[in-house]
Amino acid sequence: MISKNEVKYIRSLGQQKGRLESGAFLVEGAKIVTEMIMQCANQVQKIYATAPFIESVRDISGYIDLIEVDNEMLERLSLMQAPNQALAVMKKFDFPLPPTDSKEWLMLLDGIQDPGNLGTIIRLADWFGIRNILCTLDCADCYNPKVVQASMGSIARIGVHAINWTDWLSNYKGPVIGTMLDGEPIQNFSFPDHGLIVIGREGSGIRTEMKSLLTQSIAIPSFGKAESLNAAVATGIVLWEMKRGS
Amino acid sequence: MISKNEVKYIRSLGQQKGRLESGAFLVEGAKIVTEMIMQCANQVQKIYATAPFIESVRDISGYIDLIEVDNEMLERLSLMQAPNQALAVMKKFDFPLPPTDSKEWLMLLDGIQDPGNLGTIIRLADWFGIRNILCTLDCADCYNPKVVQASMGSIARIGVHAINWTDWLSNYKGPVIGTMLDGEPIQNFSFPDHGLIVIGREGSGIRTEMKSLLTQSIAIPSFGKAESLNAAVATGIVLWEMKRGS
Repeated sequence: MISKNEVKYIRSLGQQKGRLESGAFLVEGAKIVTEMIMQCANQVQKIYATAPFIESVRDISGYIDLIEVDNEMLERLSLMQAPNQALAVMKKFDFPLPPTDSKEWLMLLDGIQDPGNLGTIIRLADWFGIRNILCTLDCADCYNPKVVQASMGSIARIGVHAINWTDWLSNYKGPVIGTMLDGEPIQNFSFPDHGLIVIGREGSGIRTEMKSLLTQSIAIPSFGKAESLNAAVATGIVLWEMKRGS
Repeated sequence: MISKNEVKYIRSLGQQKGRLESGAFLVEGAKIVTEMIMQCANQVQKIYATAPFIESVRDISGYIDLIEVDNEMLERLSLMQAPNQALAVMKKFDFPLPPTDSKEWLMLLDGIQDPGNLGTIIRLADWFGIRNILCTLDCADCYNPKVVQASMGSIARIGVHAINWTDWLSNYKGPVIGTMLDGEPIQNFSFPDHGLIVIGREGSGIRTEMKSLLTQSIAIPSFGKAESLNAAVATGIVLWEMKRGS
Protein backbone atom coordinates (compact mmCIF):
# COMPACT_ATOMS: atom_id res chain seq x y z
CA MET A 1 0.00 0.00 0.00
CA ILE A 2 1.33 3.40 -0.96
CA SER A 3 0.52 6.24 1.39
CA LYS A 4 -0.75 9.65 0.31
CA ASN A 5 2.51 11.14 1.53
CA GLU A 6 4.52 8.78 -0.63
CA VAL A 7 2.46 9.74 -3.69
CA LYS A 8 2.95 13.38 -2.81
CA TYR A 9 6.71 12.91 -2.40
CA ILE A 10 7.09 11.18 -5.77
CA ARG A 11 5.08 13.79 -7.57
CA SER A 12 7.11 16.54 -5.89
CA LEU A 13 10.14 15.22 -7.79
CA GLY A 14 8.57 16.64 -10.93
CA GLN A 15 9.45 20.10 -9.56
CA GLN A 16 12.93 21.51 -9.04
CA LYS A 17 12.04 22.41 -5.43
CA GLY A 18 11.21 18.81 -4.61
CA ARG A 19 14.40 17.57 -6.23
CA LEU A 20 16.53 20.13 -4.40
CA GLU A 21 15.07 19.18 -1.03
CA SER A 22 15.45 15.44 -1.54
CA GLY A 23 18.49 15.05 -3.80
CA ALA A 24 16.39 12.56 -5.77
CA PHE A 25 14.84 12.52 -9.24
CA LEU A 26 12.49 10.38 -11.33
CA VAL A 27 13.17 8.10 -14.24
CA GLU A 28 10.20 6.69 -16.14
CA GLY A 29 9.54 3.94 -18.65
CA ALA A 30 10.42 0.26 -18.90
CA LYS A 31 13.46 0.63 -21.16
CA ILE A 32 15.25 3.40 -19.31
CA VAL A 33 14.47 2.02 -15.82
CA THR A 34 15.93 -1.34 -16.88
CA GLU A 35 19.01 0.47 -18.18
CA MET A 36 19.42 2.27 -14.84
CA ILE A 37 19.23 -1.02 -12.93
CA MET A 38 21.95 -2.49 -15.13
CA GLN A 39 24.21 0.53 -15.17
CA CYS A 40 23.94 2.12 -11.77
CA ALA A 41 21.80 0.04 -9.42
CA ASN A 42 23.37 1.78 -6.42
CA GLN A 43 21.72 5.05 -7.50
CA VAL A 44 18.23 3.53 -7.63
CA GLN A 45 16.30 4.03 -4.41
CA LYS A 46 12.94 2.53 -5.28
CA ILE A 47 11.09 1.17 -8.26
CA TYR A 48 7.32 1.34 -8.64
CA ALA A 49 6.22 -0.95 -11.43
CA THR A 50 3.60 -3.30 -12.79
CA ALA A 51 3.85 -7.00 -11.92
CA PRO A 52 5.21 -8.14 -15.32
CA PHE A 53 7.96 -5.51 -15.23
CA ILE A 54 8.98 -6.56 -11.72
CA GLU A 55 9.17 -10.16 -12.87
CA SER A 56 11.38 -9.15 -15.79
CA VAL A 57 13.96 -7.38 -13.60
CA ARG A 58 13.85 -9.43 -10.41
CA ASP A 59 17.04 -11.31 -11.19
CA ILE A 60 19.08 -8.22 -11.96
CA SER A 61 17.76 -5.79 -9.39
CA GLY A 62 19.72 -6.94 -6.35
CA TYR A 63 18.78 -5.00 -3.23
CA ILE A 64 16.58 -2.44 -4.96
CA ASP A 65 13.18 -2.00 -3.35
CA LEU A 66 10.65 -3.18 -5.96
CA ILE A 67 7.09 -2.05 -5.30
CA GLU A 68 4.29 -3.53 -7.32
CA VAL A 69 1.60 -1.09 -8.44
CA ASP A 70 -1.41 -1.40 -10.70
CA ASN A 71 -1.88 0.84 -13.73
CA GLU A 72 -4.16 3.16 -11.84
CA MET A 73 -1.54 3.83 -9.16
CA LEU A 74 1.18 4.16 -11.79
CA GLU A 75 -0.89 6.86 -13.44
CA ARG A 76 -1.21 8.67 -10.14
CA LEU A 77 2.55 8.57 -9.56
CA SER A 78 3.64 9.27 -13.11
CA LEU A 79 4.31 12.66 -14.63
CA MET A 80 3.90 11.26 -18.13
CA GLN A 81 0.71 11.31 -20.14
CA ALA A 82 1.09 7.64 -20.95
CA PRO A 83 3.04 5.92 -18.16
CA ASN A 84 4.97 2.89 -19.27
CA GLN A 85 5.24 0.06 -16.72
CA ALA A 86 7.90 1.43 -14.40
CA LEU A 87 9.07 4.47 -12.49
CA ALA A 88 12.27 4.74 -10.49
CA VAL A 89 13.19 7.15 -7.74
CA MET A 90 16.91 7.73 -8.06
CA LYS A 91 19.61 9.52 -6.14
CA LYS A 92 21.18 12.39 -8.10
CA PHE A 93 24.58 11.59 -9.57
CA ASP A 94 27.73 13.09 -8.16
CA PHE A 95 30.23 13.40 -11.00
CA PRO A 96 33.32 15.43 -10.07
CA LEU A 97 33.59 18.84 -11.73
CA PRO A 98 36.34 18.70 -14.36
CA PRO A 99 39.45 20.66 -13.38
CA THR A 100 40.23 23.90 -15.22
CA ASP A 101 43.37 22.30 -16.65
CA SER A 102 41.44 19.32 -18.05
CA LYS A 103 42.88 17.84 -21.24
CA GLU A 104 39.52 16.37 -22.31
CA TRP A 105 36.90 17.88 -24.57
CA LEU A 106 34.25 19.64 -22.50
CA MET A 107 31.08 21.57 -23.31
CA LEU A 108 29.65 24.69 -21.73
CA LEU A 109 25.95 25.39 -22.34
CA ASP A 110 24.91 29.02 -22.00
CA GLY A 111 21.26 29.31 -21.02
CA ILE A 112 19.86 26.26 -22.81
CA GLN A 113 16.36 26.31 -21.34
CA ASP A 114 14.42 23.87 -23.46
CA PRO A 115 14.46 20.53 -21.59
CA GLY A 116 14.21 18.50 -24.81
CA ASN A 117 17.25 20.27 -26.23
CA LEU A 118 19.26 19.80 -23.03
CA GLY A 119 18.44 16.09 -22.90
CA THR A 120 19.30 15.67 -26.58
CA ILE A 121 22.65 17.44 -26.02
CA ILE A 122 23.47 15.09 -23.11
CA ARG A 123 22.72 12.13 -25.40
CA LEU A 124 24.91 13.70 -28.09
CA ALA A 125 27.81 14.15 -25.67
CA ASP A 126 27.47 10.45 -24.86
CA TRP A 127 27.53 9.56 -28.57
CA PHE A 128 30.63 11.65 -29.25
CA GLY A 129 32.57 10.62 -26.17
CA ILE A 130 32.35 13.86 -24.19
CA ARG A 131 32.14 13.01 -20.51
CA ASN A 132 31.30 16.34 -18.92
CA ILE A 133 28.95 19.23 -19.67
CA LEU A 134 28.99 22.51 -17.77
CA CYS A 135 25.76 24.51 -17.60
CA THR A 136 25.14 28.11 -16.63
CA LEU A 137 22.70 28.38 -13.74
CA ASP A 138 19.90 29.53 -16.04
CA CYS A 139 19.94 26.32 -18.09
CA ALA A 140 17.13 23.80 -17.56
CA ASP A 141 17.74 21.48 -14.58
CA CYS A 142 19.31 18.28 -15.89
CA TYR A 143 17.07 16.24 -13.55
CA ASN A 144 13.89 17.74 -15.01
CA PRO A 145 11.90 14.65 -16.12
CA LYS A 146 11.79 15.89 -19.73
CA VAL A 147 15.58 16.24 -19.78
CA VAL A 148 16.03 12.77 -18.29
CA GLN A 149 13.63 11.36 -20.88
CA ALA A 150 15.30 13.07 -23.85
CA SER A 151 18.75 11.96 -22.66
CA MET A 152 17.65 8.34 -23.16
CA GLY A 153 19.77 6.97 -20.34
CA SER A 154 22.84 9.08 -21.06
CA ILE A 155 22.13 11.09 -17.90
CA ALA A 156 23.72 8.16 -16.03
CA ARG A 157 27.00 8.41 -17.94
CA ILE A 158 27.60 12.11 -18.50
CA GLY A 159 28.50 14.58 -15.77
CA VAL A 160 26.22 17.60 -16.05
CA HIS A 161 27.39 20.42 -13.78
CA ALA A 162 25.33 23.55 -13.13
CA ILE A 163 27.95 26.11 -12.14
CA ASN A 164 28.53 29.77 -11.59
CA TRP A 165 30.48 29.91 -14.84
CA THR A 166 32.56 33.08 -14.43
CA ASP A 167 35.13 31.72 -11.95
CA TRP A 168 35.54 28.38 -13.65
CA LEU A 169 35.87 29.87 -17.13
CA SER A 170 38.33 32.59 -16.19
CA ASN A 171 40.59 29.90 -14.70
CA TYR A 172 40.19 27.46 -17.59
CA LYS A 173 43.51 26.78 -19.36
CA GLY A 174 42.44 25.31 -22.73
CA PRO A 175 41.00 26.77 -25.95
CA VAL A 176 37.46 28.13 -25.66
CA ILE A 177 35.54 27.64 -28.89
CA GLY A 178 32.14 29.22 -29.31
CA THR A 179 29.49 28.94 -32.02
CA MET A 180 28.62 32.37 -33.40
CA LEU A 181 26.75 33.40 -36.54
CA ASP A 182 29.82 35.26 -37.84
CA GLY A 183 32.41 32.70 -36.73
CA GLU A 184 34.85 30.85 -38.95
CA PRO A 185 33.11 28.23 -41.11
CA ILE A 186 33.61 24.97 -39.17
CA GLN A 187 34.96 23.04 -42.16
CA ASN A 188 37.95 25.43 -42.28
CA PHE A 189 38.69 25.23 -38.57
CA SER A 190 41.31 22.80 -37.26
CA PHE A 191 39.99 21.56 -33.96
CA PRO A 192 42.75 21.18 -31.35
CA ASP A 193 43.02 17.91 -29.38
CA HIS A 194 41.06 19.24 -26.42
CA GLY A 195 39.12 22.31 -25.40
CA LEU A 196 35.79 23.73 -24.34
CA ILE A 197 32.93 24.06 -26.80
CA VAL A 198 30.47 26.80 -25.86
CA ILE A 199 26.89 26.55 -27.12
CA GLY A 200 24.71 29.63 -26.86
CA ARG A 201 21.01 30.00 -26.44
CA GLU A 202 18.82 29.75 -29.51
CA GLY A 203 17.90 33.20 -30.67
CA SER A 204 20.20 35.32 -28.52
CA GLY A 205 23.39 33.22 -28.75
CA ILE A 206 26.31 33.34 -26.32
CA ARG A 207 26.00 36.16 -23.75
CA THR A 208 28.28 39.16 -24.24
CA GLU A 209 30.35 38.68 -21.06
CA MET A 210 31.14 35.15 -22.15
CA LYS A 211 32.01 36.07 -25.72
CA SER A 212 35.02 38.05 -24.56
CA LEU A 213 36.49 34.84 -23.10
CA LEU A 214 36.29 32.87 -26.36
CA THR A 215 39.62 32.11 -28.00
CA GLN A 216 37.93 31.11 -31.26
CA SER A 217 34.49 31.49 -32.79
CA ILE A 218 33.11 29.06 -35.36
CA ALA A 219 29.93 28.89 -37.45
CA ILE A 220 27.90 26.35 -39.40
CA PRO A 221 27.43 27.82 -42.88
CA SER A 222 23.89 28.20 -44.19
CA PHE A 223 22.81 27.10 -47.67
CA GLY A 224 19.17 28.15 -47.49
CA LYS A 225 16.80 30.60 -45.86
CA ALA A 226 16.25 29.43 -42.27
CA GLU A 227 17.46 32.05 -39.80
CA SER A 228 19.02 29.67 -37.33
CA LEU A 229 19.42 26.05 -36.33
CA ASN A 230 17.95 24.28 -33.34
CA ALA A 231 20.53 24.35 -30.50
CA ALA A 232 20.78 20.55 -30.19
CA VAL A 233 21.16 20.11 -33.95
CA ALA A 234 23.89 22.78 -34.07
CA THR A 235 25.68 21.01 -31.20
CA GLY A 236 25.47 17.72 -33.09
CA ILE A 237 27.02 19.20 -36.22
CA VAL A 238 29.84 20.87 -34.26
CA LEU A 239 30.65 17.70 -32.30
CA TRP A 240 30.61 15.64 -35.48
CA GLU A 241 32.94 18.10 -37.22
CA MET A 242 35.25 18.00 -34.20
CA LYS A 243 35.40 14.19 -34.25
CA ARG A 244 35.40 13.44 -37.96
CA GLY A 245 38.96 14.66 -38.54
CA SER A 246 39.74 16.48 -41.75
CA MET B 1 -17.33 39.75 -31.30
CA ILE B 2 -16.22 36.21 -31.89
CA SER B 3 -18.98 33.60 -31.97
CA LYS B 4 -18.85 30.28 -30.15
CA ASN B 5 -18.76 28.55 -33.52
CA GLU B 6 -15.73 30.57 -34.58
CA VAL B 7 -13.90 29.61 -31.37
CA LYS B 8 -14.85 26.00 -31.96
CA TYR B 9 -13.62 26.12 -35.56
CA ILE B 10 -10.25 27.61 -34.61
CA ARG B 11 -9.71 25.08 -31.85
CA SER B 12 -10.66 22.27 -34.25
CA LEU B 13 -7.56 23.16 -36.27
CA GLY B 14 -5.51 21.71 -33.43
CA GLN B 15 -6.72 18.28 -34.59
CA GLN B 16 -5.90 16.58 -37.87
CA LYS B 17 -9.61 15.99 -38.53
CA GLY B 18 -10.34 19.71 -38.36
CA ARG B 19 -7.43 20.50 -40.63
CA LEU B 20 -8.46 17.86 -43.16
CA GLU B 21 -12.02 19.17 -43.32
CA SER B 22 -11.04 22.81 -43.69
CA GLY B 23 -7.70 22.76 -45.52
CA ALA B 24 -6.53 25.29 -42.94
CA PHE B 25 -4.03 25.28 -40.08
CA LEU B 26 -2.89 27.50 -37.21
CA VAL B 27 0.24 29.54 -36.74
CA GLU B 28 0.88 31.10 -33.34
CA GLY B 29 3.14 33.73 -31.86
CA ALA B 30 4.10 37.29 -32.79
CA LYS B 31 7.36 36.47 -34.58
CA ILE B 32 6.15 33.67 -36.80
CA VAL B 33 2.80 35.34 -37.64
CA THR B 34 4.70 38.47 -38.73
CA GLU B 35 6.97 36.30 -40.86
CA MET B 36 3.95 34.65 -42.51
CA ILE B 37 2.46 38.07 -43.36
CA MET B 38 5.70 39.13 -44.98
CA GLN B 39 6.38 35.89 -46.83
CA CYS B 40 3.04 34.57 -47.91
CA ALA B 41 0.23 36.99 -47.10
CA ASN B 42 -2.01 35.30 -49.64
CA GLN B 43 -2.01 32.13 -47.50
CA VAL B 44 -3.19 33.97 -44.39
CA GLN B 45 -6.96 33.86 -43.96
CA LYS B 46 -7.43 35.64 -40.64
CA ILE B 47 -5.35 36.98 -37.79
CA TYR B 48 -6.60 37.14 -34.23
CA ALA B 49 -4.29 39.36 -32.19
CA THR B 50 -3.93 41.89 -29.40
CA ALA B 51 -4.23 45.59 -30.24
CA PRO B 52 -0.48 46.37 -30.10
CA PHE B 53 0.32 43.49 -32.46
CA ILE B 54 -2.34 44.65 -34.92
CA GLU B 55 -0.88 48.14 -34.87
CA SER B 56 2.58 46.72 -35.56
CA VAL B 57 1.49 44.85 -38.70
CA ARG B 58 -1.27 47.08 -40.06
CA ASP B 59 0.97 48.60 -42.74
CA ILE B 60 2.21 45.28 -44.06
CA SER B 61 -0.91 43.16 -43.79
CA GLY B 62 -2.76 44.34 -46.93
CA TYR B 63 -6.15 42.68 -47.27
CA ILE B 64 -5.73 40.23 -44.39
CA ASP B 65 -8.64 40.23 -41.96
CA LEU B 66 -7.21 41.49 -38.63
CA ILE B 67 -9.39 40.74 -35.62
CA GLU B 68 -8.57 42.36 -32.32
CA VAL B 69 -8.92 40.14 -29.27
CA ASP B 70 -8.07 40.60 -25.62
CA ASN B 71 -5.74 38.23 -23.78
CA GLU B 72 -8.63 36.26 -22.36
CA MET B 73 -10.04 35.51 -25.82
CA LEU B 74 -6.55 34.76 -27.15
CA GLU B 75 -6.18 32.17 -24.43
CA ARG B 76 -9.49 30.60 -25.42
CA LEU B 77 -8.45 30.39 -29.05
CA SER B 78 -4.86 29.35 -28.52
CA LEU B 79 -3.53 25.83 -28.27
CA MET B 80 -0.39 27.04 -26.52
CA GLN B 81 0.13 27.19 -22.77
CA ALA B 82 1.37 30.74 -23.01
CA PRO B 83 -0.20 32.44 -26.06
CA ASN B 84 1.91 35.20 -27.53
CA GLN B 85 -0.02 38.13 -29.02
CA ALA B 86 -1.15 36.65 -32.31
CA LEU B 87 -2.69 33.64 -33.98
CA ALA B 88 -3.19 33.18 -37.71
CA VAL B 89 -5.54 30.85 -39.55
CA MET B 90 -3.77 29.90 -42.75
CA LYS B 91 -4.56 27.98 -45.89
CA LYS B 92 -2.43 24.86 -46.32
CA PHE B 93 0.40 25.22 -48.81
CA ASP B 94 0.27 23.51 -52.16
CA PHE B 95 3.85 22.77 -53.20
CA PRO B 96 4.07 20.51 -56.26
CA LEU B 97 5.34 16.99 -55.60
CA PRO B 98 8.89 16.68 -56.98
CA PRO B 99 9.09 14.49 -60.10
CA THR B 100 10.76 11.09 -59.83
CA ASP B 101 13.50 12.28 -62.17
CA SER B 102 14.26 15.34 -60.02
CA LYS B 103 17.90 16.46 -60.08
CA GLU B 104 17.64 18.18 -56.68
CA TRP B 105 18.44 16.79 -53.28
CA LEU B 106 15.29 15.44 -51.62
CA MET B 107 14.53 13.79 -48.30
CA LEU B 108 12.21 10.92 -47.46
CA LEU B 109 11.16 10.56 -43.82
CA ASP B 110 10.06 7.09 -42.80
CA GLY B 111 7.62 7.23 -39.89
CA ILE B 112 8.99 10.29 -38.05
CA GLN B 113 6.20 10.67 -35.51
CA ASP B 114 7.56 13.15 -33.01
CA PRO B 115 6.19 16.58 -34.04
CA GLY B 116 9.22 18.43 -32.58
CA ASN B 117 11.58 16.28 -34.64
CA LEU B 118 9.57 16.74 -37.82
CA GLY B 119 9.47 20.53 -37.37
CA THR B 120 13.21 20.62 -36.64
CA ILE B 121 13.91 18.57 -39.78
CA ILE B 122 11.84 21.01 -41.90
CA ARG B 123 13.90 23.87 -40.44
CA LEU B 124 17.09 21.92 -41.20
CA ALA B 125 16.05 21.35 -44.81
CA ASP B 126 15.54 25.10 -45.09
CA TRP B 127 19.02 25.75 -43.64
CA PHE B 128 20.70 23.33 -46.02
CA GLY B 129 18.80 24.34 -49.15
CA ILE B 130 16.61 21.26 -49.57
CA ARG B 131 13.27 22.36 -50.98
CA ASN B 132 11.16 19.23 -50.67
CA ILE B 133 10.59 16.55 -48.04
CA LEU B 134 8.56 13.41 -48.68
CA CYS B 135 6.89 11.75 -45.69
CA THR B 136 5.39 8.30 -45.32
CA LEU B 137 1.73 8.47 -44.31
CA ASP B 138 2.55 7.45 -40.73
CA CYS B 139 4.74 10.50 -40.10
CA ALA B 140 3.33 13.33 -37.95
CA ASP B 141 1.12 15.75 -39.90
CA CYS B 142 3.27 18.71 -40.96
CA TYR B 143 0.42 21.10 -40.04
CA ASN B 144 0.28 19.84 -36.46
CA PRO B 145 0.77 23.03 -34.39
CA LYS B 146 3.87 21.57 -32.69
CA VAL B 147 5.45 20.84 -36.08
CA VAL B 148 4.64 24.35 -37.34
CA GLN B 149 6.13 25.82 -34.16
CA ALA B 150 9.34 23.78 -34.31
CA SER B 151 9.79 24.61 -38.00
CA MET B 152 10.16 28.28 -37.03
CA GLY B 153 8.60 29.61 -40.23
CA SER B 154 10.32 27.16 -42.56
CA ILE B 155 6.96 25.44 -43.13
CA ALA B 156 6.22 28.32 -45.55
CA ARG B 157 9.28 27.62 -47.69
CA ILE B 158 9.67 23.84 -47.77
CA GLY B 159 7.32 21.47 -49.57
CA VAL B 160 6.33 18.67 -47.19
CA HIS B 161 4.50 15.91 -49.02
CA ALA B 162 2.74 13.04 -47.25
CA ILE B 163 2.70 10.30 -49.88
CA ASN B 164 2.08 6.66 -50.41
CA TRP B 165 5.79 6.10 -50.79
CA THR B 166 5.97 2.77 -52.64
CA ASP B 167 4.93 4.04 -56.08
CA TRP B 168 6.98 7.20 -55.96
CA LEU B 169 10.10 5.47 -54.70
CA SER B 170 9.99 2.59 -57.15
CA ASN B 171 9.84 5.12 -60.00
CA TYR B 172 12.54 7.40 -58.58
CA LYS B 173 15.59 7.65 -60.87
CA GLY B 174 18.33 8.99 -58.59
CA PRO B 175 20.51 7.48 -55.85
CA VAL B 176 18.65 6.49 -52.67
CA ILE B 177 20.84 6.96 -49.61
CA GLY B 178 19.65 5.69 -46.25
CA THR B 179 21.03 6.07 -42.74
CA MET B 180 21.59 2.67 -41.16
CA LEU B 181 23.56 1.62 -38.08
CA ASP B 182 25.80 -0.62 -40.21
CA GLY B 183 26.13 1.76 -43.17
CA GLU B 184 29.34 3.22 -44.57
CA PRO B 185 30.82 5.86 -42.25
CA ILE B 186 29.61 9.16 -43.72
CA GLN B 187 33.05 10.77 -43.79
CA ASN B 188 34.16 8.09 -46.31
CA PHE B 189 31.12 8.45 -48.53
CA SER B 190 31.26 10.67 -51.63
CA PHE B 191 27.85 12.25 -51.90
CA PRO B 192 26.67 12.51 -55.53
CA ASP B 193 25.31 15.85 -56.79
CA HIS B 194 21.70 14.93 -56.17
CA GLY B 195 19.67 12.12 -54.66
CA LEU B 196 17.20 11.10 -52.00
CA ILE B 197 18.22 10.90 -48.35
CA VAL B 198 16.09 8.50 -46.34
CA ILE B 199 15.77 9.02 -42.59
CA GLY B 200 14.33 6.18 -40.54
CA ARG B 201 12.36 6.21 -37.35
CA GLU B 202 14.27 6.49 -34.08
CA GLY B 203 14.62 3.07 -32.55
CA SER B 204 13.41 0.88 -35.39
CA GLY B 205 15.14 2.66 -38.32
CA ILE B 206 14.14 2.38 -41.97
CA ARG B 207 11.40 -0.23 -42.58
CA THR B 208 12.48 -3.46 -44.26
CA GLU B 209 10.50 -2.98 -47.51
CA MET B 210 12.17 0.37 -47.99
CA LYS B 211 15.68 -0.87 -47.20
CA SER B 212 15.66 -3.06 -50.31
CA LEU B 213 15.27 0.08 -52.45
CA LEU B 214 18.34 1.85 -51.03
CA THR B 215 21.28 2.17 -53.41
CA GLN B 216 23.63 3.12 -50.57
CA SER B 217 23.55 3.00 -46.78
CA ILE B 218 25.53 5.39 -44.61
CA ALA B 219 26.13 5.73 -40.86
CA ILE B 220 27.30 8.33 -38.36
CA PRO B 221 30.11 6.69 -36.39
CA SER B 222 29.81 6.60 -32.60
CA PHE B 223 32.62 7.58 -30.24
CA GLY B 224 30.84 6.91 -26.95
CA LYS B 225 28.15 4.81 -25.34
CA ALA B 226 24.79 6.26 -26.42
CA GLU B 227 22.79 3.69 -28.38
CA SER B 228 21.43 6.06 -30.98
CA LEU B 229 21.06 9.68 -31.99
CA ASN B 230 17.93 11.78 -32.02
CA ALA B 231 16.41 11.64 -35.56
CA ALA B 232 16.59 15.40 -36.13
CA VAL B 233 20.21 15.55 -34.94
CA ALA B 234 21.18 12.64 -37.19
CA THR B 235 19.49 14.39 -40.13
CA GLY B 236 21.44 17.57 -39.36
CA ILE B 237 24.77 15.73 -39.35
CA VAL B 238 23.99 13.90 -42.62
CA LEU B 239 22.87 17.11 -44.39
CA TRP B 240 25.95 18.95 -43.14
CA GLU B 241 28.23 16.17 -44.37
CA MET B 242 26.46 16.23 -47.74
CA LYS B 243 26.94 19.99 -48.08
CA ARG B 244 30.38 20.49 -46.57
CA GLY B 245 32.24 18.90 -49.49
CA SER B 246 35.27 16.82 -48.72
